Amino acid sequence: MPEFQGIFAPLTTPFEGDRISSEKFGDNIRKYNATELTGYVILGSSGESVFLTDGESEELVKTAKKTASPDKKLIAGTARESTQLTLEFTNRMAGCGMDAALIRCPSYFKSKMDTQALRAHFLTIADRSEIPVIVYNIPRNTGVTMTVEFLAELAHHENIAGFKDSTGTLSALEELLPALPAGFSYLLGAAGLLFPGIQLGASGGIVTVADIAPEHCVKLYDLIQQEKWSEARRLQLDLIPLNKAVIQTYGVPAAKYALDLLGYYGGPCRLPLLPLDEKGKKEMEGILKELELL
Amino acid sequence: MPEFQGIFAPLTTPFEGDRISSEKFGDNIRKYNATELTGYVILGSSGESVFLTDGESEELVKTAKKTASPDKKLIAGTARESTQLTLEFTNRMAGCGMDAALIRCPSYFKSKMDTQALRAHFLTIADRSEIPVIVYNIPRNTGVTMTVEFLAELAHHENIAGFKDSTGTLSALEELLPALPAGFSYLLGAAGLLFPGIQLGASGGIVTVADIAPEHCVKLYDLIQQEKWSEARRLQLDLIPLNKAVIQTYGVPAAKYALDLLGYYGGPCRLPLLPLDEKGKKEMEGILKELELL
Amino acid sequence: MPEFQGIFAPLTTPFEGDRISSEKFGDNIRKYNATELTGYVILGSSGESVFLTDGESEELVKTAKKTASPDKKLIAGTARESTQLTLEFTNRMAGCGMDAALIRCPSYFKSKMDTQALRAHFLTIADRSEIPVIVYNIPRNTGVTMTVEFLAELAHHENIAGFKDSTGTLSALEELLPALPAGFSYLLGAAGLLFPGIQLGASGGIVTVADIAPEHCVKLYDLIQQEKWSEARRLQLDLIPLNKAVIQTYGVPAAKYALDLLGYYGGPCRLPLLPLDEKGKKEMEGILKELELL
Amino acid sequence: MPEFQGIFAPLTTPFEGDRISSEKFGDNIRKYNATELTGYVILGSSGESVFLTDGESEELVKTAKKTASPDKKLIAGTARESTQLTLEFTNRMAGCGMDAALIRCPSYFKSKMDTQALRAHFLTIADRSEIPVIVYNIPRNTGVTMTVEFLAELAHHENIAGFKDSTGTLSALEELLPALPAGFSYLLGAAGLLFPGIQLGASGGIVTVADIAPEHCVKLYDLIQQEKWSEARRLQLDLIPLNKAVIQTYGVPAAKYALDLLGYYGGPCRLPLLPLDEKGKKEMEGILKELELL
Repeated sequence: MPEFQGIFAPLTTPFEGDRISSEKFGDNIRKYNATELTGYVILGSSGESVFLTDGESEELVKTAKKTASPDKKLIAGTARESTQLTLEFTNRMAGCGMDAALIRCPSYFKSKMDTQALRAHFLTIADRSEIPVIVYNIPRNTGVTMTVEFLAELAHHENIAGFKDSTGTLSALEELLPALPAGFSYLLGAAGLLFPGIQLGASGGIVTVADIAPEHCVKLYDLIQQEKWSEARRLQLDLIPLNKAVIQTYGVPAAKYALDLLGYYGGPCRLPLLPLDEKGKKEMEGILKELELL
Repeated sequence: MPEFQGIFAPLTTPFEGDRISSEKFGDNIRKYNATELTGYVILGSSGESVFLTDGESEELVKTAKKTASPDKKLIAGTARESTQLTLEFTNRMAGCGMDAALIRCPSYFKSKMDTQALRAHFLTIADRSEIPVIVYNIPRNTGVTMTVEFLAELAHHENIAGFKDSTGTLSALEELLPALPAGFSYLLGAAGLLFPGIQLGASGGIVTVADIAPEHCVKLYDLIQQEKWSEARRLQLDLIPLNKAVIQTYGVPAAKYALDLLGYYGGPCRLPLLPLDEKGKKEMEGILKELELL
Repeated sequence: MPEFQGIFAPLTTPFEGDRISSEKFGDNIRKYNATELTGYVILGSSGESVFLTDGESEELVKTAKKTASPDKKLIAGTARESTQLTLEFTNRMAGCGMDAALIRCPSYFKSKMDTQALRAHFLTIADRSEIPVIVYNIPRNTGVTMTVEFLAELAHHENIAGFKDSTGTLSALEELLPALPAGFSYLLGAAGLLFPGIQLGASGGIVTVADIAPEHCVKLYDLIQQEKWSEARRLQLDLIPLNKAVIQTYGVPAAKYALDLLGYYGGPCRLPLLPLDEKGKKEMEGILKELELL
Repeated sequence: MPEFQGIFAPLTTPFEGDRISSEKFGDNIRKYNATELTGYVILGSSGESVFLTDGESEELVKTAKKTASPDKKLIAGTARESTQLTLEFTNRMAGCGMDAALIRCPSYFKSKMDTQALRAHFLTIADRSEIPVIVYNIPRNTGVTMTVEFLAELAHHENIAGFKDSTGTLSALEELLPALPAGFSYLLGAAGLLFPGIQLGASGGIVTVADIAPEHCVKLYDLIQQEKWSEARRLQLDLIPLNKAVIQTYGVPAAKYALDLLGYYGGPCRLPLLPLDEKGKKEMEGILKELELL
């Protein structure tokens, strides 16, 4: 049984003025604790982690550890460009009680990130990380391609517990499924692929949509487990407009606006992310009403 | 009920020396007639249509019309760069008894192919075509993006009967499903998406894999109709290596080599497509054995 | 001394209603005969060659042969997707009196167009073409990369007389210059690189801007030959807005509109290219006034 | 007269074991002080800045300030993903005596980095930075396009002193030249464009090649100022293989290897950049001999 299965919410980071608000972050987590979410990702893209200092990052992670129900799995995004800094930050997060580290490819020197370099990077980290590593495949953002053969190789490292697949397709999953060791976690990063991907064999998902509609996502997961296909299909299609808005069209500002409407604390993003415009706000309200969240 | 549903094989074109062989083409079709394939696509990518003269194209289409069982649907690829030439060739194919025309975007002047230009192109053709049009969305090859909004608009034209979706993702399907008129045909171009895509609501597929493993593809389609999900899932995964080889790794030469091994006539491709090398041949043999076709 | 040096205009194709107008085409050529252009390219992108039948193509080429001053070099675009059809059309153009054939990469099966396939393609054609071949490198349109090593190899084939470089950079030129045989023609496809490129060692250019401002382009070429650098620099910069409009922003419809304003016959493009809108017309008028052409 | 003109070397960062070596860094700078380089860039890509902690970065900058001849201009790379962190780090570098800050686009949320977001980012920083800003345009790495219109707008901000253009083309330069205010610095990031770009009107370059062959680069600059075009042309072409090796083929490890050969301290890169392999070492030696540096 994969250690990481079910639905994970990649938490947003609450800002008040120039500072992060651990209090609001804790409030949000307490609300999420009441859901059936499997766990939380802290310091992911939705958490605007690239805008945070290491100190702010640590504060958030400690708050999560303190506030999250003990049954919730905690995963921290720990990627840095250098192998050494990634490893150090990963073990710092291990020290804060995280259950796993989510690590994407280095991408600054993209043309040099061939399999040999990526192997040196990920194996160095996996060998010395005090917590399991989840390798994050998101070529659209990194501009770096990890081959299926290389991913299969990584999957057999004893300290690599899973993948997060944000390729947007099912190709890697379909090619990798026969090659994965038992108990390996395969988490989808695309909310639109939850139904088909989990049915094919993925173990769950880490999707921003779960920040806003956690119950819908959990129900979708459960319907698939119960083999209620036509209900699952319908629920999957219902989530498409929300997913498109928070990922493709508007991004994190739309997710935070939705949270504000739903009683969580969303608040502003940090610059250079701009606030959601009026058109976006209206569209988000329509989408939430359609889902009967508003 | 969609007019075009089930599995279509995009037929390869038999060459002997410098010429096409209508005889071998007819022989292949007679073999396919014994399968439960819904129909055939003539003059598609797998048919190396871009290497054929108009005269050769017409000869193939006439052979198909003469040889195919009357219950098989016949679709011809008729795209040209100019609107007028596409229309003329489409109606020439209509005159040869084709049931529909499969038409991808013009792509030579890609930076000018905005929605306004594409609208002028497709509406001019759909308005005057004597047979239904199936719009072919393959951005990877054309470099042209058709927006979901524009596709939804096209779907409501009375002479546009369907889409072929070779985006490689499920995004367009998921976004379009709620917007499609009743009876609209949505055909998948990616064999790896047959199971998840048809389950979500697609009406079938046009996949090169069906040239080589028609019975497997038809069985997969039937299993989905019968809601035998776990069998369908297994069969879907079994087809992945074959699909990867004939689409991504080796292309049409690999498909033709497989046909030669299986008693069909595959034969050589036209230059600049090169013959399959020894490594590719060995891999294809292994794949066919794994599928118990050899 | 390179056989093809100086400025070539890639001629537009005059349409009247549904048909090409050889008469207008001849009229335009007679006007260009009065300039110091080195020659003309017929059936290039600016000539909307992808919208023409073989019959129309041949009619245009014969008109050009009949009408062009004997001192003007004539180059025909002859690329097709198949090696054989390219060769046949090339030799048909040779039979019409063309001095060279301009041939870009096949691109439909782009992922299969590796150096081995391109070598088979270009060598087959160069070996048997009755006229010299100019290899056209335009990766932006074809999606196919020709390596510098492969281009250097082609340059040493006795029947490959030159390159047209539409990469938009000077990298290939700078890398290739030391490797080119004496007398090899290196023609730039980017009007913005005429000054720096010819100064570095290119032999000339094939640029749409030369259709509209032939005297400016010829003067720029002459100023470089005369080493009048600061005048050349100024003239080069003056041509940038015209080039941007006819290549990047508006394309062939803008070039044809400019021709109409200047006493040539521009006329409409074929669909799916749309007519220039009012904003574009106004911008073109401003650009032509700035160049004192209007 | 532009404040930043001539040739700048983007310094590499010396590592010994796990740590940076300020001593070796100072030694290198003392060697460079003997050249006619205009100045140095610290914390650029060649300096592996993405692998450094803020503390290491500050140590390097302070060493540079202490060691560089007073006539050398000092520019620090200060980009971060967030506007606020970029501003804070920029002013920290100002406090260390830097003459300017070189700042590229944020790129993590690339699809959201439209002109409006980039405007908010750069204007916030330029308004409050204590030193002039040089805006760094490198779309190949960032995946973010800055339009010519937006760059022209930025050029008129009183605290934006220049651009570094690493687009690899001359298009932006040619389009922007007429729109730039007097005294604006336009620095090329592509060593292959020094000759044509400076001749067209650029004020100089920041090129890794200048780390290895500073005298060649300075001489090239001087030849252009003296209008010795054919010598400049030859020198430009001579530098192409070195540039290709240290930028495209092998990257920073090749630059560092060359430094080691030439009496500077190059040393290892940090992981995930791998050491130069034997083939690369041999090629670098050949290139340096060809340039009579070895």
